[in-house]
Amino acid sequence: MTPPDAPRKRGRPARAQAGTGPGTRERILAAARAEFAGRGYDQASIRAIARGAGVDPALVHHYFGPKEQIFAAAVEAGFAPALGAPGVLAAGGRDQVGERLTRFLLGLWENPATREPLLAVVRSAVANETAARVFRELVAVRLMRPVAEQLDVPDAQLRAELAAAQLVGVFMLRYVIKVEPLASADASRVIALAAPSVQRHLTGQ
Amino acid sequence: MTPPDAPRKRGRPARAQAGTGPGTRERILAAARAEFAGRGYDQASIRAIARGAGVDPALVHHYFGPKEQIFAAAVEAGFAPALGAPGVLAAGGRDQVGERLTRFLLGLWENPATREPLLAVVRSAVANETAARVFRELVAVRLMRPVAEQLDVPDAQLRAELAAAQLVGVFMLRYVIKVEPLASADASRVIALAAPSVQRHLTGQ
Repeated sequence: MTPPDAPRKRGRPARAQAGTGPGTRERILAAARAEFAGRGYDQASIRAIARGAGVDPALVHHYFGPKEQIFAAAVEAGFAPALGAPGVLAAGGRDQVGERLTRFLLGLWENPATREPLLAVVRSAVANETAARVFRELVAVRLMRPVAEQLDVPDAQLRAELAAAQLVGVFMLRYVIKVEPLASADASRVIALAAPSVQRHLTGQ
Repeated sequence: MTPPDAPRKRGRPARAQAGTGPGTRERILAAARAEFAGRGYDQASIRAIARGAGVDPALVHHYFGPKEQIFAAAVEAGFAPALGAPGVLAAGGRDQVGERLTRFLLGLWENPATREPLLAVVRSAVANETAARVFRELVAVRLMRPVAEQLDVPDAQLRAELAAAQLVGVFMLRYVIKVEPLASADASRVIALAAPSVQRHLTGQ
């Protein structure tokens, strides 16, 4: 999927040369994430992403294609830690899946390094229909389906989404809207209150 | 709270006169809601709201004050139907509160006339910190506190927020992100799956 870094050529402009090299793709992705987080999908510009990464706008297009695909790559990178959820589900006893999943995902939101990219994804997806489509495909295919495949209940994917809804709502109210007392409650208390709902949705217990 | 419509004066410009009258405040509010929904809190302008309502920008300021207060009024109007939730909670038996509350609030999202203003509020609150503050004060004071006061459980407001989180997550995934199969599932099926979680949070059952 990732095009290799373009080979350097003699006589190429210095600016484009500064943009090539092993870290270029990651630098563009970081700049894209910052641009989408700061200005939203609609207002974000490829020119600003290029400026943020210190490369030519043509190089942004070379690596990622049009804006929608840059966004998809930024979403995937920002959302990557959450894609560990199906593995967390599998790694342990069935009667603790709610607690394990809740603790794992809340941990990602508690940590600013993983929270900020998640916030950027959520903000863009709520504000823009194209961004929402990119996000929902990722969530459905990479998160809900692998979780549902591990469940032995009728309507497994719908139930996985109800479990996700409990957690999405907690993340929205605690980290985005910041409603008290939920925003300041101990993480362990939040896990103790949310996990039984997640468990009941996932396993019917 | 609402300033009375300014009396008409002889010799006043025709444009300003067209902006006065009994429906002016509501017209400005509707224009404000459309502007916040379409462009978000940051990009919304008082000039565009005035244009949408067919009044002078000074009249917008006269009725509502600065942008933050126009937004607060628009949020309150858009969110007004949801403020019926504490009444719904009170009107019936305790062992059905989860089902009653879930059915009532899902009904607001199922109906486009109440869904669109709610979507506008959520979009603005997710995208902008000032908008989030206005929204969370409304949610805490007008929704969570009256609900919590009816509950006879420890940490009543925190539990009310966990119940709200289950529903907020369902609304986000079903109506905003539109993840399948949740987005297309029968409302009655969604209520049957979500209500027991809401019930458990609210009453500990």
